[in-house]
Amino acid sequence: MTLDALVFDAYGTLFDVHSVMRRCEAFFPGRHAALSQLWRAKQLEYTWLRSLMGRYAPFSTVTREALAHACDALGLELTVERMEALMAEYNMLSTYTDVPKTFASLKGVKKAVLSNGSPDMLEPLVAHSGLELDALISVDEVGIFKPAPQVYELAPKKLGVAKERIGFVSSNCWDALGAKSFGFTVFWINRSRAPLERLGFAPERVVERLDEILF
Amino acid sequence: MTLDALVFDAYGTLFDVHSVMRRCEAFFPGRHAALSQLWRAKQLEYTWLRSLMGRYAPFSTVTREALAHACDALGLELTVERMEALMAEYNMLSTYTDVPKTFASLKGVKKAVLSNGSPDMLEPLVAHSGLELDALISVDEVGIFKPAPQVYELAPKKLGVAKERIGFVSSNCWDALGAKSFGFTVFWINRSRAPLERLGFAPERVVERLDEILF
Repeated sequence: MTLDALVFDAYGTLFDVHSVMRRCEAFFPGRHAALSQLWRAKQLEYTWLRSLMGRYAPFSTVTREALAHACDALGLELTVERMEALMAEYNMLSTYTDVPKTFASLKGVKKAVLSNGSPDMLEPLVAHSGLELDALISVDEVGIFKPAPQVYELAPKKLGVAKERIGFVSSNCWDALGAKSFGFTVFWINRSRAPLERLGFAPERVVERLDEILF
Repeated sequence: MTLDALVFDAYGTLFDVHSVMRRCEAFFPGRHAALSQLWRAKQLEYTWLRSLMGRYAPFSTVTREALAHACDALGLELTVERMEALMAEYNMLSTYTDVPKTFASLKGVKKAVLSNGSPDMLEPLVAHSGLELDALISVDEVGIFKPAPQVYELAPKKLGVAKERIGFVSSNCWDALGAKSFGFTVFWINRSRAPLERLGFAPERVVERLDEILF
């Protein structure tokens, strides 16, 4: 591997959001699939819209607003207790089963997380996981979300590694392509065998499991 | 009305995209609802992503890329002929039935369209409609899509009217809120009675039909 650092997306890449969905099912029986899907879609949409409007708000705020809208749209009653219980799940997400093995095998490269998550969400999450990182980087310090190039620029700055020597790993195709547009070498973890997004770029490698990036 | 100009969004606000959906149904029987929904979602998503990546492409390109992705994701076979037939529908969309009456009643205010559409799509569309406008404005000249403030800034510039004296009319809630964030007086045409998007702003008025903005 000719890369000096690997930079990972957090949600959906290292951390499995399944437990949040399970909690959705407990609160809204039979509706968790619709709610999880709309919540996630609105969460992303609001990050992009606020970024373009120049109206950044922390990911914890955007995530709450997206949940409130999704419940409105689906006619589900969201209490403060339910919202806080769902948000608390985000701070305790499990890593995917292939994460510890992959991290243990990555010798001689720096490892970082670069996430839309705000520090109030990311810090407890990473502490809970026990993952050892050279840098935990939040978009919060540039006040704009992925895939703005200012976000990806944080990684070479924090790690002291040129972008040409950084591999970026994400399960979100649009994030992988934003990173590719910026200039990283990109691995798309396509866990769900989705078709490529059409944004004028392609990843260097497409794999289905995280540990496949080792080979 | 203390406004000197009204600026309208095009697709979904003045122009009904129903005929594109009807053509989808002809090509992909039984699948038009899923295809139309995913195509539209990806079309918007790609405008936001490309804007944030700093990789603007004209709306006609983005619309084709979104259609190609949607067909990939749904396992539908998209030929060049089908794509071109669907794109051709976009240039001949009908206005909603309340549009001519509303325009005829708007005396003493300038009228403009401000759209994500590229000139190759907007010019034939407006010519076909017979609408009389003081300005037909495309995001294309600033190379970024809505809801970036640079886009809304085009309207006061082209019309010679201060933004405080401009009313902005859109059926897309996120577009209305982007315009509100910029500083327009905003009317959200909520044809489908959708819940408000949560982006930190609210429109001045929410109506269900275009002609209600007259009252």
